[in-house]
Amino acid sequence: MAQVKNQQVLLKHYVSGFPKESDLNIVDSTINLKLPEGSNDTVLPITGYGVSKVLESGHKDYKEGDIVWGITNWEEYSLIPAAQIHFKIEHTDVPLSYYTGILGMPGMTAYSGFFEVGSPKKGENVFVSAASGAVGQLVGQFAKLHGCYVVGSAGSKEKVDLLKNKFGYDEAINYKEEQDLDAALKRHFPEGIDVYFENVGGKTLDAVLLNMKLHGRIPVCGMISQYNLTQPEGVTNLAHIIYKRIRLQGFVVVDYYHLYAKFLDFVLPHIREGKVVYVEDIAEGLEKGPAALVGIFSGKNVGKQVLVVARE
Amino acid sequence: MAQVKNQQVLLKHYVSGFPKESDLNIVDSTINLKLPEGSNDTVLPITGYGVSKVLESGHKDYKEGDIVWGITNWEEYSLIPAAQIHFKIEHTDVPLSYYTGILGMPGMTAYSGFFEVGSPKKGENVFVSAASGAVGQLVGQFAKLHGCYVVGSAGSKEKVDLLKNKFGYDEAINYKEEQDLDAALKRHFPEGIDVYFENVGGKTLDAVLLNMKLHGRIPVCGMISQYNLTQPEGVTNLAHIIYKRIRLQGFVVVDYYHLYAKFLDFVLPHIREGKVVYVEDIAEGLEKGPAALVGIFSGKNVGKQVLVVARE
Repeated sequence: MAQVKNQQVLLKHYVSGFPKESDLNIVDSTINLKLPEGSNDTVLPITGYGVSKVLESGHKDYKEGDIVWGITNWEEYSLIPAAQIHFKIEHTDVPLSYYTGILGMPGMTAYSGFFEVGSPKKGENVFVSAASGAVGQLVGQFAKLHGCYVVGSAGSKEKVDLLKNKFGYDEAINYKEEQDLDAALKRHFPEGIDVYFENVGGKTLDAVLLNMKLHGRIPVCGMISQYNLTQPEGVTNLAHIIYKRIRLQGFVVVDYYHLYAKFLDFVLPHIREGKVVYVEDIAEGLEKGPAALVGIFSGKNVGKQVLVVARE
Repeated sequence: MAQVKNQQVLLKHYVSGFPKESDLNIVDSTINLKLPEGSNDTVLPITGYGVSKVLESGHKDYKEGDIVWGITNWEEYSLIPAAQIHFKIEHTDVPLSYYTGILGMPGMTAYSGFFEVGSPKKGENVFVSAASGAVGQLVGQFAKLHGCYVVGSAGSKEKVDLLKNKFGYDEAINYKEEQDLDAALKRHFPEGIDVYFENVGGKTLDAVLLNMKLHGRIPVCGMISQYNLTQPEGVTNLAHIIYKRIRLQGFVVVDYYHLYAKFLDFVLPHIREGKVVYVEDIAEGLEKGPAALVGIFSGKNVGKQVLVVARE
């Protein structure tokens, strides 16, 4: 029983530009389910945040049968260094997939970025890009719970409908149908934007800078429109950072995991009462991984993209 | 005696792009030195921070003979609304011109931007652009007093010499002689930059973003390279704000004038003991105003550009 088949998603080579499905391989390898004595060496598949069940552990904090979330390889069985495990899962009355999303890295990202970096006040005007995504859909709901006016942007009619009908955004912008994003923002924010939760960068940031209010804040979570460009678009309206005394602040969720217990206390009751919802786009089976990954960069997924490797 | 000649510097028209001397007029007008009963209406010359002596005042805080600094017109005599006067000058053992510089708006800008926005710690690495200018020369000296390693950039050999020999910068970069600013920064900051005091924007900011340290801070004071461009240069490396969790924060000195007394307590002893110096580039006579203004945008001035309208 020690050696078992272990399907993996591997990168064929270093990828520059947007990934294509042909950059990835599905490989049937094998893995020894007994803990090795020494080395952690292993072929490195793609990694991502995942939920795993412990089969065997040499670490005092984890034992067989525990469910954990953290950084895992894209494969059926993994040898995971303890440092990659973020938290043991204590609450299992909610879907386990939530620990890759609303109760995992994206949830903590939305929470820390909006509340800790964005410093929102009740009644303020909030704009969110990639607003139906893994993080954005939560920023919008948190902002509404906080008493803010919230507008989101997304790239399809289906997503825009979700923003207004499912996540409670006050208004929604389909950026692919707006000739002039600056004008669209002026329409929805005649008095300007206090907090812009930045997920996309590039032209969107440029238009937002023209519409920020005095002392506005921009938590910078991501710039997905720019990541895989050989030459990023130039942002030209940065002088507005001075005119409006804007704080533009990059953050990474790992700096905020000490707040995880506080976050669960905040969000779990809202989930159980149905006051916060979470939309997932679930692909079944490791072999769907490459297409799911590639789809994220073209906005194909609706909500948090989840890849199911196995169900219990 | 009520009507006197009043030389003024006037704009001929709205200026787009960099100002030229031909955009400005020197005009001999007259002014009534008795306070009018009602209206404040007046032709509007260029305004700037100036030091003035009160001839007559209807405001309880000011009386004949007081010396004040604040926003004044470029003219010999001015009717100044009280709101434009920032502070009455109490310490006259230092040159009065200092209240247009080290003890005025530029000094408060350097102090609030570096200490309040930049949150510097002893031993950190600081980079300053426009480092010999009205603000930059002080940021460098404040950073040295604070125990930081400080490198400045400027655009001539004369300025670079000042940085090292007069203001105590550890190293200085003549950006006009560097083919590759990124490489120059890597040379002077092999471990990266903690605080970048931003005065210029554009390509300099782009190179700095590549060299910031984790949790670096960028107080954004100015972007003088961009102000008068019809189309600003695009900044392409903003994604580093995320990777390095950078805080980029615009500020305007008027938000910090409540700290003015604290600032004077800090800086006056240093001036009297010669531990902080201030270099001024003095033009004599209102008629030199247009050339002095135009020169700022091409970096002609060395140190704080001061225009002397009259000496006591």
